[in-house]
Amino acid sequence: MPYIQTKVNVEITREKEKNIKQKLGKAIELIPGKSEKWLMLSFQDNSNLYFKGSNEESIAFIEVKIFGKADNKEYDSLTKEITNIFSQELNIKPSQIYIKYEEVEHWGWNGSNF
Amino acid sequence: MPYIQTKVNVEITREKEKNIKQKLGKAIELIPGKSEKWLMLSFQDNSNLYFKGSNEESIAFIEVKIFGKADNKEYDSLTKEITNIFSQELNIKPSQIYIKYEEVEHWGWNGSNF
Amino acid sequence: MPYIQTKVNVEITREKEKNIKQKLGKAIELIPGKSEKWLMLSFQDNSNLYFKGSNEESIAFIEVKIFGKADNKEYDSLTKEITNIFSQELNIKPSQIYIKYEEVEHWGWNGSNF
Repeated sequence: MPYIQTKVNVEITREKEKNIKQKLGKAIELIPGKSEKWLMLSFQDNSNLYFKGSNEESIAFIEVKIFGKADNKEYDSLTKEITNIFSQELNIKPSQIYIKYEEVEHWGWNGSNF
Repeated sequence: MPYIQTKVNVEITREKEKNIKQKLGKAIELIPGKSEKWLMLSFQDNSNLYFKGSNEESIAFIEVKIFGKADNKEYDSLTKEITNIFSQELNIKPSQIYIKYEEVEHWGWNGSNF
Repeated sequence: MPYIQTKVNVEITREKEKNIKQKLGKAIELIPGKSEKWLMLSFQDNSNLYFKGSNEESIAFIEVKIFGKADNKEYDSLTKEITNIFSQELNIKPSQIYIKYEEVEHWGWNGSNF
């Protein structure tokens, strides 16, 4: 029951999107019990973003929502990996990437809650 | 002070949107004290979504944000009802629908917080 | 590490966006320790929103996400100020504006978490 929402102010080509999708599907395994089998992704490229008052550089805002909780160490590993993915695939500087986590208590799937 | 955000990877026609809007306005009453009189909705159709590594099937990601808290039982009823709405109106399989809840402590309206 | 996401169902011209950006960069200082130097913004104009079952009036849904916590008093000041900004710049009635806060425990930047 993880969900990762990607917002970037650059274009994501189909090929890049496929790469990012596959890499996020692997990265999510850094959180115990999570895998691509339950992962939902949302991509919004060409978003209208500002960071530090400017929109002149590439920017990424990534939201990771998981059912339940994880350890600091696990979030650290995931932040490092997700930052690598967007840095490598879209040439976004790590210092222009925010990754925000949400631990979710109530999450529905297939008509009932986990 | 509830807010429901709909993201689907299919088109929502005006007629379907009106139906869904009306049904969500009823469904939110399953949470005590909530009604369409305070409900805000956001629709993003044709979103770029993946589930389980694939974007070949219809997918819905619904976020429900409420001021305060509710019981498990109430969330269960709402998940069942929202799933029915999107299953019936947009032919999305229940197994392709995530519904995520957020309980909000600080919420502003009309220039001040509740 | 604050992030403010703006969704409105009206158009935001470039000039208006610049004004709002600058004003939000000032307003965020109402939360101790926060400033435009760490502020990320997202704008989605012409969004598909409903409030109280209707989409005939202008509507704004603003999400403010901060790393850590703040006091009720600080949130009150920020709600007042953000409401003023959208009321003045986009002529949206305060009674048509929701501002939702999220206090975030895990937040990554530059490859590691705060």
